[in-house]
Amino acid sequence: MDYAKESLRLHEEWKGKIEVVATVPVATKDDLSLAYTPGVAQPCLEIKNDVNRSYDLTRRHNICAVITDGSAVLGLGDIGPEAGMPVMEGKCVLFKSFGDVDAFPLCIKSQDVDTIVNTIYLLSGSFGGINLEDISAPRCFEIERKLKEKCDIPIFHDDQHGTAVITLAGITNALKVVGKNKEDVKIVVSGAGAAAVSITKLLLSDGYKYITMCDRYGAIHAQRKEGMNWIKKEMALVTNLDNKSGTIADMLKGADVFIGVSAPGLVTTEMVKTMNRDAIVFACANPTPEIYPDEAKAGGAKVIATGRSDYPNQINNVLAFPGIFRGTFDVRASDINEEMKIAAARALAELISEEELNADYIIPKAFDPRVGKAVAKAVAEAAKRTGVARV
Amino acid sequence: MDYAKESLRLHEEWKGKIEVVATVPVATKDDLSLAYTPGVAQPCLEIKNDVNRSYDLTRRHNICAVITDGSAVLGLGDIGPEAGMPVMEGKCVLFKSFGDVDAFPLCIKSQDVDTIVNTIYLLSGSFGGINLEDISAPRCFEIERKLKEKCDIPIFHDDQHGTAVITLAGITNALKVVGKNKEDVKIVVSGAGAAAVSITKLLLSDGYKYITMCDRYGAIHAQRKEGMNWIKKEMALVTNLDNKSGTIADMLKGADVFIGVSAPGLVTTEMVKTMNRDAIVFACANPTPEIYPDEAKAGGAKVIATGRSDYPNQINNVLAFPGIFRGTFDVRASDINEEMKIAAARALAELISEEELNADYIIPKAFDPRVGKAVAKAVAEAAKRTGVARV
Repeated sequence: MDYAKESLRLHEEWKGKIEVVATVPVATKDDLSLAYTPGVAQPCLEIKNDVNRSYDLTRRHNICAVITDGSAVLGLGDIGPEAGMPVMEGKCVLFKSFGDVDAFPLCIKSQDVDTIVNTIYLLSGSFGGINLEDISAPRCFEIERKLKEKCDIPIFHDDQHGTAVITLAGITNALKVVGKNKEDVKIVVSGAGAAAVSITKLLLSDGYKYITMCDRYGAIHAQRKEGMNWIKKEMALVTNLDNKSGTIADMLKGADVFIGVSAPGLVTTEMVKTMNRDAIVFACANPTPEIYPDEAKAGGAKVIATGRSDYPNQINNVLAFPGIFRGTFDVRASDINEEMKIAAARALAELISEEELNADYIIPKAFDPRVGKAVAKAVAEAAKRTGVARV
Repeated sequence: MDYAKESLRLHEEWKGKIEVVATVPVATKDDLSLAYTPGVAQPCLEIKNDVNRSYDLTRRHNICAVITDGSAVLGLGDIGPEAGMPVMEGKCVLFKSFGDVDAFPLCIKSQDVDTIVNTIYLLSGSFGGINLEDISAPRCFEIERKLKEKCDIPIFHDDQHGTAVITLAGITNALKVVGKNKEDVKIVVSGAGAAAVSITKLLLSDGYKYITMCDRYGAIHAQRKEGMNWIKKEMALVTNLDNKSGTIADMLKGADVFIGVSAPGLVTTEMVKTMNRDAIVFACANPTPEIYPDEAKAGGAKVIATGRSDYPNQINNVLAFPGIFRGTFDVRASDINEEMKIAAARALAELISEEELNADYIIPKAFDPRVGKAVAKAVAEAAKRTGVARV
């Protein structure tokens, strides 16, 4: 199927992929007096006296904003806020269909960090949570950090954390397949954008030790001057502990794991051949991966994942964010913290039993009906355990 | 029924009165590839090339934001943004149920005019129109004016214009009942808030000549110093042409029409007795009117309207805003201008035939099924006539 052409035709037919509907009747005078004036004054006063009652008396408990500035939409780059909207609406469809989370898309006509932060803060009383989407790095890190400081509702950037959760789940199971330990493996992450940074941080949080990040200038290390920015400097302090410099090909020599969230075709069969035995290759650039699975296999890779649905082991964000928000909302969590993300990853990994687990099945399928609930349950439990649950 | 108690109980049961639902399927891999990646890139690019395509390819063509700062919610005053949300959700229910307009509630955590204007502007690419709600005067006038200058989508403040449209419709038919002409009648408007100012302006736009506005300090005139603000000064230039000063009782002597959008019990039977023969009394303070209908009748009033559903001739905003937005969205109008409001008022008035028209039936009932469509049709036609329609 020509997805581009057919998708455009469908979007013209659909004229929007979401709808805001009323869930209460207004068919009689009494209906009106209860859902609206004069009766509605009473719930208003309840919230005035205790703002937390907004979670009981309005839809806030289940509504997430999906917010972009249009600066990094899919692989299309900076296409502007309105043009990002079909993706945002699509995301809202996934939130609802896979997590029963009401999600509403907003595009902000500014790419200034503080303007975006302030705009979202000013709206934060209308939502139970915020999902940032397709905001370019390194701005996305600053926006997220400032919002977390300012807002009392959970802030999540799916391009970072959703991808990180599923990658961690996949790596967890891939290591079981090849019989290696997270404390020992050498990992090369290709990319320095939202996903690469968040994957690296989550792996470190979960106890991985030896990670080297590479961008187009090669390995990121503390002494490097070329092509650095503040987030790369920050990451240099906690990765590449030997301060190695060199190309990605240099870094792959003897590595156990490659995680690519970067650009098409960066890795060759020859490079995979230089990796440690039973190499794990996650080539997630989309739609064209850093290396195609057959090429990676030819280089001796044992477990291979991509972002594509036409190969085994798809790293697909829909496995994580609906369940993560479901679990977060279920316990009215004030934050989505590292423990909750790790719990989500673990829940995903554990959905595959030891008997089922094999090199071509390390991650649940996108339509596995168990996924949303398992993730939500694990996330809610982790929220309670870490003291951020509010009910 | 104890509306307050029952409404609170229902709001606890409902846990929100709106829901965001998905209208496209994501049950298969192909569904996902069409509603989301990779297919969705194509509609994004279409909008990037021509931002107007956002009306064809996303829900924007039918989505209105209902926005408050919580500064003047119902008669409750400044209760804060979150506490205003039950009203905003209720409004969204009415938009959908009476106009098939998707409406989404947003409360802004600021009462600074420019902050509110800028926040709404930054979000305006996500919506087809903006409905301001429960924002205190005179800030609401400035916010609306600045937004109209800045945004290319229609901006409407229902507390002003919705009320004005229905009042104009009611006055139009009331004059028919008593056989007077709009060019001749003397009108006293009690109040200087959002509704009073907008009613006065719309009556002037429609050809009414003799209007005097009164606030708690009495008649507003150009020389008055006490209790003035910029909007009262502006209104003093186009009303009270004789520059009369005095109390509301003074102003009512010889007046043909009283329109109250002010405070309970301001007007007495004795005061109505001093009005011209066949007086028209619109006492819209809610829930307690400026004068109760039986008291006004005892003073000789011929046609009486209130904001209440338990008396004849209810001035109920639900008669106007759903149809106004329906008509506006149907022709993708860039503005809701005076002509469109007058057209809406005329359509409402004309729904009552000459045979049906009488002192107790000058305004259609809230649940009259003809209302929404008639208003929408008239508004769309006026938009085309005045060049603001975009399809």
